[in-house]
Order: sequence, then structure tokens, then C-alpha cells
Amino acid sequence: MSDRNGAPPMTRRDLLRMIGVSAGSAAMYQAMTALGFAAESKRNGPVDLSDAPRGASVLILGAGIAGMTAAYELRNAGYRVQVLEYNARPGGRNWSLRGGDTYTELGGATQQCRFDKGLYINPGPWRLPHHHQHILHYCRELGVKVEPFIELNQNAYVHSSRAFGGKPMRYRAYQSDFNGAVAELLAKSVREHGLDAPLTKEDGEKLLAALQLFGALDNDYRYVESDGTSDRRGYLRDPGGGLSGRPQFSKPLSPGDVFRSGLWETPWLHSVYEFQETLFQPVGGMGRIGEAFGRELGTIIRYRSRVTKIDQDEHGVTAYYEDAGKPGSTMKAQADWCLCTIPLSILSQIPMSVGKPMADAIAAVPYASAIKIGLQFKRRFWEEDEQIYGGITMTDLPIQQIGYPSHGCFDRGKGVLLGAYVWGQSAFELTAMSPEDRVRAAVRYGAQIHPQYEAEFDNGVAVAWHRSPFTMGCFGIWSDAAREQHYDNLCAIDGRVALAGEHASFLPAWQEGAVTSALDAISRIHRRAVAGGHA
Amino acid sequence: MSDRNGAPPMTRRDLLRMIGVSAGSAAMYQAMTALGFAAESKRNGPVDLSDAPRGASVLILGAGIAGMTAAYELRNAGYRVQVLEYNARPGGRNWSLRGGDTYTELGGATQQCRFDKGLYINPGPWRLPHHHQHILHYCRELGVKVEPFIELNQNAYVHSSRAFGGKPMRYRAYQSDFNGAVAELLAKSVREHGLDAPLTKEDGEKLLAALQLFGALDNDYRYVESDGTSDRRGYLRDPGGGLSGRPQFSKPLSPGDVFRSGLWETPWLHSVYEFQETLFQPVGGMGRIGEAFGRELGTIIRYRSRVTKIDQDEHGVTAYYEDAGKPGSTMKAQADWCLCTIPLSILSQIPMSVGKPMADAIAAVPYASAIKIGLQFKRRFWEEDEQIYGGITMTDLPIQQIGYPSHGCFDRGKGVLLGAYVWGQSAFELTAMSPEDRVRAAVRYGAQIHPQYEAEFDNGVAVAWHRSPFTMGCFGIWSDAAREQHYDNLCAIDGRVALAGEHASFLPAWQEGAVTSALDAISRIHRRAVAGGHA
Repeated sequence: MSDRNGAPPMTRRDLLRMIGVSAGSAAMYQAMTALGFAAESKRNGPVDLSDAPRGASVLILGAGIAGMTAAYELRNAGYRVQVLEYNARPGGRNWSLRGGDTYTELGGATQQCRFDKGLYINPGPWRLPHHHQHILHYCRELGVKVEPFIELNQNAYVHSSRAFGGKPMRYRAYQSDFNGAVAELLAKSVREHGLDAPLTKEDGEKLLAALQLFGALDNDYRYVESDGTSDRRGYLRDPGGGLSGRPQFSKPLSPGDVFRSGLWETPWLHSVYEFQETLFQPVGGMGRIGEAFGRELGTIIRYRSRVTKIDQDEHGVTAYYEDAGKPGSTMKAQADWCLCTIPLSILSQIPMSVGKPMADAIAAVPYASAIKIGLQFKRRFWEEDEQIYGGITMTDLPIQQIGYPSHGCFDRGKGVLLGAYVWGQSAFELTAMSPEDRVRAAVRYGAQIHPQYEAEFDNGVAVAWHRSPFTMGCFGIWSDAAREQHYDNLCAIDGRVALAGEHASFLPAWQEGAVTSALDAISRIHRRAVAGGHA
Repeated sequence: MSDRNGAPPMTRRDLLRMIGVSAGSAAMYQAMTALGFAAESKRNGPVDLSDAPRGASVLILGAGIAGMTAAYELRNAGYRVQVLEYNARPGGRNWSLRGGDTYTELGGATQQCRFDKGLYINPGPWRLPHHHQHILHYCRELGVKVEPFIELNQNAYVHSSRAFGGKPMRYRAYQSDFNGAVAELLAKSVREHGLDAPLTKEDGEKLLAALQLFGALDNDYRYVESDGTSDRRGYLRDPGGGLSGRPQFSKPLSPGDVFRSGLWETPWLHSVYEFQETLFQPVGGMGRIGEAFGRELGTIIRYRSRVTKIDQDEHGVTAYYEDAGKPGSTMKAQADWCLCTIPLSILSQIPMSVGKPMADAIAAVPYASAIKIGLQFKRRFWEEDEQIYGGITMTDLPIQQIGYPSHGCFDRGKGVLLGAYVWGQSAFELTAMSPEDRVRAAVRYGAQIHPQYEAEFDNGVAVAWHRSPFTMGCFGIWSDAAREQHYDNLCAIDGRVALAGEHASFLPAWQEGAVTSALDAISRIHRRAVAGGHA
């Protein structure tokens, strides 16, 4: 379009288009939904790129979720699109490891995944919150079936090696005792000290009634052993039928034990927006989304192409890359515009002709360390012995989390657990180990929670994101200060280059951030292209 | 076995058998699980009926879940078994209404279900808690596939016609504001008044830290508009990507509004044991369990047989019944023992030769009224427009609940909602209406929550349990006093007759109560039979 000039062609400007142009594609999609135009959204997609200039081209760097979203929409809008991808597969961090897959990390360690047929682990994202409507839109559009992801399981554990003798506690018991202790303390305070303005005496009565229900308090506002509290925290013996069915009540923890245990550091996570019910996962693994995009885009994606340099001038963009099949080769791709979705951890090492604001922004975002370890066991003992179907156990051990599969519940045969999902310092410690040692560590730690681990362990894989050749980290960490100073500069189009990816969003680490950042960026590129490159 | 005498044959008595004999089958199953003998439990089933006397026979009245559980286990143990069932289908309250099904209630009103293929409503039970291990055992045993039942959906609504202008509120927003208000009030109290023994100053510091996480309080322990509170209660505009992705925060309710609204009457339900995550449902409808039992038992079940009288003497039991195909006919069935699973609401009207304790118990249990209304809509607007996938909206309107299907999420095409699930006074009012009027009422009320109702409504069915010819009520209501006086008498074997069903359990209304009461009763019948009928 660099050779185009003059006024852009007059086009239809309907309500949705205007919303989209003035407030961005995410706002447009939300407005469409609010207005009940879901059917229209299905036809038009979540971004309006109508009246694309004839022959205009966009080069996309990276075939992750952001890059492929952009490629899909731009192609559908009539742009000429090419995607360069480092890996031999589409998806990037959208990825499932299945039996037979091989993965080589930085340093050369190669793992062969030996899971049974149908079993998998998602080294990257593993859940789709219901409000992540853009990525869910593409699941539907591309025919990727989804199923419920069980995030909250009150029968899973909270565990601290420093509390209750290191014995795991059912989430239900701890949550109930926490609520009961809080309700009892507040009820006592209200009855002894009253309430402060602006709450009235009547408010106080309503509050007491609410606390009674919330905390399962008795008529004296105490949280004590009873049918009522066992019906929250669990029974010593469950109610049943006939003459043997009389329940036995369980004994609550004391408030002191509740607060001293430190276990309250994790249950609140379930009330955070991203982890609120309902959530979904693609049937067969998160990688199904990337695979579907890859199939849809076909030869638009050029795999095994490592970008080494990005140049631009007033006419267009040139990317230089090496073909992994021809080491030392230098090839180039050119287009009117470039959308670069390469993680900043990699991009900051690639020479790129952009101005100082974008360059500074690229250099300003460190990447989080994270590890996921998948463990295959000979049987689904967490279900058979402990009645845990999906959900997550939280622990202060270096494995941090154990994730139970939401799918295949009650299946006989082998099963794969997420044996560790680790951020922070523990992630660096595990990253420093060999993959085999990481797996061994996950089994050793996990056995403190599930004694069946040692006997039932079959095999495992461990992906440490700081050793991933295509990201060298898990996701971009934005401090408030960095976001204030650099975020807009990172996202603003620099000449003919725009960036997209979870790092260019307010949803770090989430695919929804990647998708919405791509839609936002291409709608801005489109506006410039329509305006003849001079907008 | 009435002709058997002398000592019972010596049999293998292993640990599990002893637990089963001394504490009942439910306790045995729990012990097996606790001991890690899940594999054994699979082989042996949840009850040990070994060494059944040759030729011993049991007559079972009712082919609901209790009767069929008993028939299945007794047959497998070698007993001669016959089941008499009033309906033309197995399952009883385990039942799914699908397109093409017909249902005639007391009074003669007949409904034809006109749902599309694959859509259904469960007029009776609709969920299987993960700890209801006995009914789940039979799902697995009979090849009934299950899938997650989404009970908690923080994106569904809580609604009061008397609060917030009658506008429904997302569960997440109300729950967060409730937690925030409680946490803020308690933090204030602790800081101003301190804590009482046995809590220490250190406990107080831990409590404050916990309240901050629990309630999303700021550093001054206040619950205020912020990214942190919006990340619980929801944003005014969700975070997204690129330059249009900056989130807009939402404004919390004041504590006074939280407590005055009365909406706290429902969210606590999600913390009750039976409704705690995870839960399951059979793929294709709850009725799949009854249907599978029915297929398995085949001609052991005699359908359309209405029991009119139950006699017993020291030799055995005789039941008289009418074949619905031959009105006025009287036929009889005889056996050594009888397990009667007929609901007490019906049984109390059938002449029966049992002693006063059991007779009094049968008469002592009133039956709960309940109504379920299934509504088919032309599209799944609750998903497309409101992003509600599964879960339940709670309201003070006479429909009480709206249940969203956990299955088929994101499907295009029609969908069926549970448009009302009503107990108590409202249930009687709806029962008094014609089925058509009940459906109309559900649409009218529901439209206050989902305005799409009127335009999208397609057709509906309404099952009022007090008009059900085979139960005349929904489930047995046990007061504490009635249970104290009558429960053991209801469950104790009277001569050669024992009772089973949810009414003979500590889990009223739940299928698990029916299953465990059946297992408990047949293990006691078995012990008497093994002992030669003289135990």
C-alpha cells in the first residue's frame, strides 16, 4: 500500500464498525454481545477488517495464538499473509505433549514423551475461563470441541509441610473451618461492640443471620461439631441408608489452628476472576487449538524459520530468517506491514529497525520462570482411593500444585497428573536440574501428599520454560511502573511494525491476551492500510 | 429358606466381611476405600452376599434405584429374584423426559414432551456428588458414562425481586462483595478491639493477613474499587490486549446494600457437602442409570404391576397385584423374603401385615412437594448473550432456580433449561395449575431474569411430584423427632419384610440414600437367610 495515496474509499460505517474503530475490537465484541448481536458476531468475526486495500500484504512473525489469530483474520479480510515460525509445529506455548512426542530444550536435553494413547500434558496454558470469549470464539469457529475444566474441587487438598503434621487437608474442611472461624469472630464482635455507621441496627441483624448461614454457626453463633458443620467440612462417617447409615460428625479445627496453619494462602485463589467457574479445556489437549489454526492456515505458515533481523522503511518491512534445514542460510520475506508476535525475551536479541520508544519497551519486560511436570501413573489412584476428580491440590512443597485431569474421570487404566506447576524461585531450582531429576523430584515431593506415588509411577516429562528455545521464559512480567512507562510504546505501531502477544496485553500469560492484542493490532494496521499508509 | 434349619454353613470370614457384617455395607465400602482396597471393591461389589442359601428367593417391590440395586446384587449372589413395578419403565424417580415421551399425572392431564433430539430434562435427581460413591459405583459397573455436572457457576445470577431494582446480579459480584464486607468489618474489629483468648496477638496478625486475601482488602484493610476487587467481582470492562485493552474497574456494593439485599440466603448453598464440587451427571440424562439397570435385569422386572396387598407368615411373603393390562385382575407373587421399596406415601395406603412399630413408622413420614419445569428455547441465549455455561441462578421468584445445562455448551441450535425447581408453598401453588399454566408461569417469571425468554421460548414440560401416580410426592421429610421415634423401626426387618429407599436413609431425596439403604437391608436379609430364617 506504500504506492497508494489519496483519500480512502468510502465504506459502510455501521454502529459496530464505529464502535470497533473508536474503541478497539474487544470493546466492539463486548458491545455486540451486549446488544444481542451474537449471531452477527458469528458471521463477521470479532474484528471488522472490511474494505482491505487490494494486494496489501502483512508479514507475521510467530505462529502462536496471536500470530495465527492475526493471520486468520487478515487472510479472511483479503490481505496477502505470510507467517514465519521457529518451531516445526503451530501453536507456540499452546501445546500438548502426547505419547511419541519429542522435545529438546536449551542445553540439548531431549525428552521423549512415553504417555499412553489419549493421555497428554499441556506444558503451557491449560484452561479457558468462560469470560475469555475471544479464544472461545475461535474454538467454536475452528471446530475445536471443548469440555468443562474442573478448577475448584473441594475434595482436593490444601497442604502445608509445616502444619497439621504435614498431613494434607481436604479443601472443604479447611474452607469451612476458615469461614466458620471468621463468622464466629465477627458475630461475637457485632454482638459485643455493635456496628459502626453507616450500618444500622437492622443491618446488624441481617449481618448476624447472614453469618449464621455463611459460617454454619449454631443458634448461639458458634461454629462447633454438629450435623450442620459436618455438612460443610465433611463427616467422619458419611450419612447412608438403613440401620448402618447414621452419620458421625467431624471435629472442626480451632480458630487458632486455622489461622496459624498458613493454609489460607491458597483457597482464596479460587475466587479470582480467571479461576472462577466455569472454565473449559479443548477435548484432547489445549494444543488442539493451535493445531486447528495450523491446519486452517496451511502453507501460509513457513515452519522452522528463525528470524534473525527485522528491517523497515517507508515502503514496507523485510524480515531475514534462517531455514533450520539449511544452517547458515539467510532468506528474506517482505510485506507492506509486519505484525511481530515473537516473545520479548527472544525479540530483544534480534536486530530490529524501530524507534527508541518501542526498543526500550521491548527491553523492559522480564519473563517469568515456570515449570510444568506431567506424570503418568499406572492407575488413577487419586480417583479410586481418594475420590478426587479434577481440581487442584495446593502445597507449600516446591511442586506448588498437583492438577488432576478433568477428563476421563472413572476411566480404568493409566492416568496423567500435572505433578508440578511451579513459579518463582522453586522454578529456577527445578530448571537447573536435568529433566529426569525434575521428574524424580516431583515424584518424591508428591509422595508426601499421595503415598501411592512411588508404587504407581510410570513415566514423566518436565518442561522448564526458561529452557524453551522458542520463548526462554513463560510470559512477560509487567510491573506497574514498567506498564506506565512502556506499555503504550510497546503496542503503538512503529512505522510499519506492530507487536502482539500476551506480552502486549493486560492479560499476561493468558491466550485471551494474545488473541485480543492481535485483534487490536491488526485493526490498527488495517486502519492505516485503508488510509493509504499515511494515517 | 423357610424349610431350612440348623446352623449356617461355615464360610470364609475375611476382614472385609466382618466389617460388613458388624457395621453394614456402607461402612464396609468406606473401610475398603480407606484401606486402599478399591481394586477388591471392584471385584466384589459394595456388599458381600456370599454363601446365599440354595434356592432362597426375594420378592422386590418397586424397580426404582433401591429395588434394582437390591435385585442386581441378590441375583448376582444366587438368590431367586422377582421385581414388581408399577410403571411401564424402570427407574422410578430416576427418570429423564425426552422428545416423544408421554407422561400422565394424577387427574389425567397428559403431557407430550416435544424437545428436540438429544435434549432432555430430569424431573427427579439431576446430579451425582463425587462422594456418592455407591451410585457412582453402579454407573461404572453398568457402563453408564458420566460427565461433569456444573453446580457452581460464578457467572450465573443471584436475584431478588426486592433488591437492586429486581435486576439480577452475577454470583461473583455478590459473593465478592459479601466476603469483602465481612473481611473489612472483622479486620476493623480486630484492629480496634483486639482478639479474645485463646487467640494470641500473633494469631491476630495472621488473621489480618488472611482477611486481606480472603476479602481482597487493600493495605488499609478496606474493600474498595480497585483492580484487586474487580478481579473478584468482575470488571466494568474486562482487561484485554493492545491499546484498547485497559480494564475499567467496577464499583463494589456498600456493606449495607450487601446485607439488606437478602441475597446471602442462597450463595452459601454452594458450600454444603452435597453441592460441593465435583459433581457428575450421566451422559444423556439421569434416566440412563435406571435404563441400564432395567436392561441388566430384563425379565426379572414385571412392569405395570400395581401392588394392592402384602401378606407374610413364618414361611414367606405374598404380594397381591393388579396387572395394568387387565384391570380388576388380582395376581400374586411369593418368596421367602420381601424387600419393599414403594414410597411411604403410597405404601401407607396398601394393606400390609407388619407389626405396629413398622406400620407407625410408615405412616409417620410426610412427603415433600416439588416441581421441575423443563423449557426448550430456540437458541442457547444464556450462553450466547450472557456467557452462562451450566450452573444455577437462584431467585426469590416462585420458580426458585434456573438450571443451565452442563452438557452441550457452545452447541448451536436449541437448548433446554431447568426453568423452575421449586419446593415448599410455591410448589403447591404450581401443582394446582394445569401443566400448560405451570410452563407459562415459568416463562413469565423467568423473563424477569432473562428478557430473551418470551421471544425464544419453544415448548415445555412440568412435573409436579405430588401429582405423580407412582410417588404422590417427591421424597420423605424426616423431622428430628420422627427420626428419633420411627427411623429404626422403619428399617428393622419385620418378620420377612424389610423396607428400602431414600426414605429409609439419612440422605433423603438422594439416590445414594436409596442405594445404601438397599445394600444395608439386603445384607441384613442375607444374614437371616444364611442363619436359616431364624436369626
